[in-house]
Amino acid sequence: MIQSEAHAPESRPIAILCAGGALPFAVLHAMRAAGRRSIVVAIEGIADPGLSRFHAHWLALGQLGKLFALLRRERCAGVVLIGAMNRPSVSSMRIDAIGWTYLFDFLRNIRRGDDAMLRGMMRWFEVQGFPVLGVADVAPELVAPKGRIGRIDPPAEAVTAAARGFACLDALSPFDVGQALVAIGERIVAVEGAEGTDALIERVMELRRDGRLPRAGRGGFLLKAAKVGQSLKVDMPVIGPRTVELVASAGLAGVIVEAHRVLLLESQAMISGADEAGLFLFGLEGRGAP
Amino acid sequence: MIQSEAHAPESRPIAILCAGGALPFAVLHAMRAAGRRSIVVAIEGIADPGLSRFHAHWLALGQLGKLFALLRRERCAGVVLIGAMNRPSVSSMRIDAIGWTYLFDFLRNIRRGDDAMLRGMMRWFEVQGFPVLGVADVAPELVAPKGRIGRIDPPAEAVTAAARGFACLDALSPFDVGQALVAIGERIVAVEGAEGTDALIERVMELRRDGRLPRAGRGGFLLKAAKVGQSLKVDMPVIGPRTVELVASAGLAGVIVEAHRVLLLESQAMISGADEAGLFLFGLEGRGAP
Repeated sequence: MIQSEAHAPESRPIAILCAGGALPFAVLHAMRAAGRRSIVVAIEGIADPGLSRFHAHWLALGQLGKLFALLRRERCAGVVLIGAMNRPSVSSMRIDAIGWTYLFDFLRNIRRGDDAMLRGMMRWFEVQGFPVLGVADVAPELVAPKGRIGRIDPPAEAVTAAARGFACLDALSPFDVGQALVAIGERIVAVEGAEGTDALIERVMELRRDGRLPRAGRGGFLLKAAKVGQSLKVDMPVIGPRTVELVASAGLAGVIVEAHRVLLLESQAMISGADEAGLFLFGLEGRGAP
Repeated sequence: MIQSEAHAPESRPIAILCAGGALPFAVLHAMRAAGRRSIVVAIEGIADPGLSRFHAHWLALGQLGKLFALLRRERCAGVVLIGAMNRPSVSSMRIDAIGWTYLFDFLRNIRRGDDAMLRGMMRWFEVQGFPVLGVADVAPELVAPKGRIGRIDPPAEAVTAAARGFACLDALSPFDVGQALVAIGERIVAVEGAEGTDALIERVMELRRDGRLPRAGRGGFLLKAAKVGQSLKVDMPVIGPRTVELVASAGLAGVIVEAHRVLLLESQAMISGADEAGLFLFGLEGRGAP
């Protein structure tokens, strides 16, 4: 297949479709630093207004016709869906003519959990000819490596307990629950649901304050992993400096992330935060390879 | 074996070893109403002072020598361990000579989770010749029946979702986590850890308040079950009127309990609370029989 220089796949941009939070910035900074081309699409009312400095195209939820037209016009080679989003209500959408044709599919999927909703959205883009890429494809610098990430090594018992923790998260995966848990000693004390990782750690903090978990002594850790079969292209677990701060406040000894399957947001700030607080920060291959 | 009238097994009392909360009262009231003999042993600093009106013998944690001597003196036919207890600290104990011989076993088990700790304690009594009985043995009136408990029937979708919820709790059982979860629609939104059922429901309340779960409309339910292999003799899940109040506040539509394996505390108050709030309250056989 012969293509002109201008249309060579290498030079075509990737569309970064941005929802809320800081992750879109991290992805865009990493892409710029590596000289990778991007087109920024920001979701009105959800994405950070600061994205305007990346020349973002602002679109409302439901404006799928406009979005697909933009992606075609810019000859995008693919699309990355990134950032935090609460389950949107239909009333917050501005559904265009094309958008309406996807609404039924959307409403059916949303009832089945986050994974189903995101997989459904991925299919929409792929059918339109825009493969969905993951953060790991466009900004591999953000992905948790294997082994020690900070300066401090985890104790052997934490690594052993993490293996049991992975097994627990594996068992939960079919139910679309749980990307994280907190273990103290050999005991799993809290499992993440819809509340998210910050609230999970805060719960452990409260249990310690109330004396329902031993107050004295540091110990235990946050385990953060992807769900088995989770679509890492559109929903990769993330930790950042705030995670490490909360872990320190909860009197835990560190964080173990699933290597290659968790994103590290502002990793320099996070690592120095962990080092200063005396916490370990470690990437462990969770499934398959030990 | 020939026994005098006075020593006939039927006439020997059951020792009710009481930790905190209202459940010991419910058990003692049910036993009295049914004319079953009991000896009440209350744990100092943990059991409700009101137990004194049942002529309780007050003992501190760790006074195992005194306890076993009492059980022998009263010719107890068995012992029931009942009531709520945080994991005790060794410093709160008054360990007697016999107690010391159990301390190592206790400390080893406590690290392995609640089930291991309770199973260990059961063995202590059994080795001393006092079989451990469950609430179901001495107060079967408190056990959740199968089928509709209140006035309102659950919708068919809730019963279907409960089956999936049981499967999720089954998957968690090997990890000694989770006697309860909250499902909304087909989605499991929160799984219970060390925080307990009340805090689990309060979490759902907060998620709704923050808009992280749909605010509008009632729906969803609390599922409360025993863990697979959980020792129902010493650690049966309990719900009560407070559970129903919280479920109502969280905008859920009802409660499904595992029939035969969950205790209903103050069931009359709970049932009328559910009826008045328009909540269903239903016993479903969770494992095996549908």
